[in-house]
Amino acid sequence: MSKPKGKLFLIPNVLADNTQDAVITPQVKEVITNTKVYLVENLRTARRYISSLKLGVNLDHVHMEILDKGTSPEFINRLMQPLINGADIGIISEAGCPGIADPGALAVEHAHKKGIQVVPLSGPSSMFMALMASGFSGQSFAFHGYLPIDKKDKSSAIKKLETESLREKRAQIFMETPFRNNQLLEDLLKTLAPQTKLCIAKNITGSDEMILTKTAQEWKELPLDLHKIPTVFILQSF
Amino acid sequence: MSKPKGKLFLIPNVLADNTQDAVITPQVKEVITNTKVYLVENLRTARRYISSLKLGVNLDHVHMEILDKGTSPEFINRLMQPLINGADIGIISEAGCPGIADPGALAVEHAHKKGIQVVPLSGPSSMFMALMASGFSGQSFAFHGYLPIDKKDKSSAIKKLETESLREKRAQIFMETPFRNNQLLEDLLKTLAPQTKLCIAKNITGSDEMILTKTAQEWKELPLDLHKIPTVFILQSF
Repeated sequence: MSKPKGKLFLIPNVLADNTQDAVITPQVKEVITNTKVYLVENLRTARRYISSLKLGVNLDHVHMEILDKGTSPEFINRLMQPLINGADIGIISEAGCPGIADPGALAVEHAHKKGIQVVPLSGPSSMFMALMASGFSGQSFAFHGYLPIDKKDKSSAIKKLETESLREKRAQIFMETPFRNNQLLEDLLKTLAPQTKLCIAKNITGSDEMILTKTAQEWKELPLDLHKIPTVFILQSF
Repeated sequence: MSKPKGKLFLIPNVLADNTQDAVITPQVKEVITNTKVYLVENLRTARRYISSLKLGVNLDHVHMEILDKGTSPEFINRLMQPLINGADIGIISEAGCPGIADPGALAVEHAHKKGIQVVPLSGPSSMFMALMASGFSGQSFAFHGYLPIDKKDKSSAIKKLETESLREKRAQIFMETPFRNNQLLEDLLKTLAPQTKLCIAKNITGSDEMILTKTAQEWKELPLDLHKIPTVFILQSF
């Protein structure tokens, strides 16, 4: 008789430093206590995260492999071997929930093909929590990841999001690399119609969390520095 | 000097019975311990949820008002008055996170207009956890709420989701009233191209949780009963 296969756990990480005691669930702590094999985006931060939970986990007995955007689909096969042998694997990404806009999705896709059970655990997601707090209805929304870097392409992308938002009655969620946030904000305020609403959600769960929804016109009158601060942008045109 | 305004907390509920000890964070428990005014979708289930957390909250000292899809925007103004007077308000919906595809969004919108701080708390979301576990990349996805009930309109909507998924490289998330799940599944399998992938996520966090991603062709060969079981559907065409 063959051994039962392991499970693939999608383990949320914190969004902001020193928030683990507030936002991490008992279930996540239990899974981390019992899991010995991990796929992580960054070894150092994953180890630091597990240590921060103070679960008495001996990191010398934990096996971690890197799963990042450079990992080839072929190599995933090898990374997933412990599951076939009956060990559980946990995926931990740099921040928030793995599997969304992140390399964890490759491992999940592989698991479905091999008949391995995938178990998502509840945890903080900046994108999702920004949407909750935006006041946009959430009946229809779309996540677009990162906008183009080129100024002209970015401006066209913003206009397309705005037009589509009005047509589809849809909130449009997007992000930027934190050191380019101020540039994106400038481009948004230049491009959007004055009455289009923009929710800016910065450093969610952090001590300086700020989530505000205002019209593009209102934002123009507010000084705001988002440089290097993790931020989610959501626009809706009415 | 005027009193500082209260905060509007968006408080997650469980998705499945008897999971509160696993999925509810310490922060949510702390906020519920300290909050005395709530807007809820259903008084009975909100009271039952708070009691289930065993925080020693005396429900006789808690004030709850109903906020549901029948609540007029004008009445929201009155419901939100305690915030102006300095009291915090918590919003609790029937299941999962308030503010997404749910009446809580009306209160959040109002709060932004009145300059009241909105604080989303991390918790389980069936839509988001299904997406995490689907294996679809999550680089681009859209939530469409409920599809039309009329058979012909529903079939057109499914085709449109599939075409748009291919064109925009987008995962498409949607739901159905649980007692119509089997009908939706039948319509999906009739309408989708055989190679289109469909993730079916049923009773997330429950003891019979099932999250599987297969092609429409593969699903046709699997007997599956989703009747009255909370289910999230995600399709992606490649």
